[in-house]
Amino acid sequence: MQKFGGTSVGDVDRIKAVGDHIARTVRHGNQVVAVVSAMGKTTDDLLRLANDVSSTHPGRELDMLLTSGERISMALLCMALADLGVPAVSFTGSQAGIITDTDHTKAKIVEMRPDRLLEALSEGRVPVVAGFQGVSLEKDVTTLGRGGSDTTAVALAAALGADFCEIYTDVSGVFSADPRVVAEAHKIHKISFEEMLELAASGGRVLALRSVEFARNFGVPIHVRSSFTWEPGTWVQEEDETMEQAVVSAISHDVTEVKVTITGVPDRPGIAAKVFREIADRGINVDMIVQNTSIDGFTDISFTVPKDDKAACLEVTRAVSAEIGAREAYADSGIGRVSLIGAGMKTHPGVTAMMFEILAKEGINIEMISTSAIRISCVVRQDDVENAVRALHEAFEL
Amino acid sequence: MQKFGGTSVGDVDRIKAVGDHIARTVRHGNQVVAVVSAMGKTTDDLLRLANDVSSTHPGRELDMLLTSGERISMALLCMALADLGVPAVSFTGSQAGIITDTDHTKAKIVEMRPDRLLEALSEGRVPVVAGFQGVSLEKDVTTLGRGGSDTTAVALAAALGADFCEIYTDVSGVFSADPRVVAEAHKIHKISFEEMLELAASGGRVLALRSVEFARNFGVPIHVRSSFTWEPGTWVQEEDETMEQAVVSAISHDVTEVKVTITGVPDRPGIAAKVFREIADRGINVDMIVQNTSIDGFTDISFTVPKDDKAACLEVTRAVSAEIGAREAYADSGIGRVSLIGAGMKTHPGVTAMMFEILAKEGINIEMISTSAIRISCVVRQDDVENAVRALHEAFEL
Repeated sequence: MQKFGGTSVGDVDRIKAVGDHIARTVRHGNQVVAVVSAMGKTTDDLLRLANDVSSTHPGRELDMLLTSGERISMALLCMALADLGVPAVSFTGSQAGIITDTDHTKAKIVEMRPDRLLEALSEGRVPVVAGFQGVSLEKDVTTLGRGGSDTTAVALAAALGADFCEIYTDVSGVFSADPRVVAEAHKIHKISFEEMLELAASGGRVLALRSVEFARNFGVPIHVRSSFTWEPGTWVQEEDETMEQAVVSAISHDVTEVKVTITGVPDRPGIAAKVFREIADRGINVDMIVQNTSIDGFTDISFTVPKDDKAACLEVTRAVSAEIGAREAYADSGIGRVSLIGAGMKTHPGVTAMMFEILAKEGINIEMISTSAIRISCVVRQDDVENAVRALHEAFEL
Repeated sequence: MQKFGGTSVGDVDRIKAVGDHIARTVRHGNQVVAVVSAMGKTTDDLLRLANDVSSTHPGRELDMLLTSGERISMALLCMALADLGVPAVSFTGSQAGIITDTDHTKAKIVEMRPDRLLEALSEGRVPVVAGFQGVSLEKDVTTLGRGGSDTTAVALAAALGADFCEIYTDVSGVFSADPRVVAEAHKIHKISFEEMLELAASGGRVLALRSVEFARNFGVPIHVRSSFTWEPGTWVQEEDETMEQAVVSAISHDVTEVKVTITGVPDRPGIAAKVFREIADRGINVDMIVQNTSIDGFTDISFTVPKDDKAACLEVTRAVSAEIGAREAYADSGIGRVSLIGAGMKTHPGVTAMMFEILAKEGINIEMISTSAIRISCVVRQDDVENAVRALHEAFEL
């Protein structure tokens, strides 16, 4: 299984290069299934057209529009392969048997029926599959949402029993920190599914969270690598003995969220549930949540949400605040998040303390904290994020 | 049934205008099914990409590529309609139940199963269907070839029992001659299927030949009209008493063919058949054929083929000429064709003579002649074509 993202098939020359690479893989005796995204900025261009033509974008029609992008790149890739003497055949999500629910623009896969892919493979042909798309139980075209092409590739790899899933992208792998922030950041050669999940959830942009979940659930090793250099990248796989048990494997950061705070919340059972139910009903994803210790029967609640949802979230939060008798609700856009990720943390309880000490030494104030077994995240001022990443990267000797 | 061609949905503003027009038709109490082509030059752009990426264009992949164009225009049109409060739902050729054979890039419709369109109509929604495309019996995406969107519209109109099929285009109807050549050319208000067939076959660019055949076979009246002015255009329908029985209804011309001549052909049974079988096997469409009277057991054969096929046709013709012992084969690109079309000709045998006289008076030499019950075509020098059209238009008082 080889998946090629938008920049990997960004123009005619890139498509030819991808064709060469697949041809070489086939000549080495491998069976290959390729999954492609739309070319470069195609999806953005289509969205702009939609905005120009109408302010109403029914999900079904938006999906119909956006799925045209992969048809173009996959047909072109098949032509490039034909030129190289490699018989290839393209399949839409529907033809590839990717059956989803009817939740347009963010459909979930409910079943895989890759019969036509198996048939093509048995005939010695390379199936080229449109990423990001499926067909619903009601026979409408659906899309899988952000990062959907990665999910397509991993789900197909699982359904076809592929040895592994190669994700070709514009970076050469998963790094110990963002190389644009930390010049010394190094490429990680192996990382466990669990660490990668935490990394994807805390701002790592390389793999979509859902695809990693899929890979972990079905035990499909992922190899993230560059389609520009073709050099080996990062393996994402089951934790094993050969994996170095570093306390901290990587540091991620994220500046795409805002912090919303409600002050003077009456500390009664069910109040917090009410707040987050109303927010969830608006389709807003809440990330970190922190509730202070109650003083005199009142508490403060802070949580982070994506910047795009700030206005909608404030609106609903203020309405609920009035209803429950809280003092006020406000949003703070000037925050960022820094996370330490490492499977070794489980057995090293001192990491949290060390992280706080390093940040304190840099004069960086911590506003929120959230931890899991293998991750610690701190919300800090956005201006401090890069300093924090660099200091932590150096201190943990990555 | 309303069909909108590439220029009718050429940009965002045109799509909104089409949405307005459909909304108005619906508000007047009509059930509407819309068929759309790809936006403007989309198809040409996709073909250029294909040429850039590869010299090999498997038909199946070419169809996959080209059918992305209509997905974009139909999804955008549905969004525009949603903005206007008109519930609409888009259907690919496959979803609309347009079942074809497996002859990629020029598939023929073998069955229509428009169940989903009927369902949408019964729910009060406007089905917007992708023109030009279908799905083969082997579940692959196919295209119907040049003018395929017209065919989609007429075939759907027949299958759904529509009252008529409106074809919106960039001209305001069918004219008595090309208005760019004859300033006095007038719009024809009604024309019979048979005349329109001859017109489409002899250089008329307004409707694709196959769509007219379909309309005649199923008795679907077509209304050809402009999506820029929205004024009434030309009705193409069964011949009836109310139709003016003009001797000549229209004059068409065509300069897209070359004349191929084989001289010194032994005049034996089966020789001509051999020539045209070999040409047909190369997929070249021969149009007019003229064979001179045999002299001393040898004859000359001339025929016209599309300019694009000139090289291929000459190659096969020269090979066959050598085989059958003919003298030589050559092509002449400097020709054009002028045709008179009129249902009234059937009962007016003098029309052919009159046409020859008019051309002679203009000093125009006739190189080939071919006639049907309601058409006379003459091949003349290409430089003489426009003069011929003007002289005939005036003489027949169109």
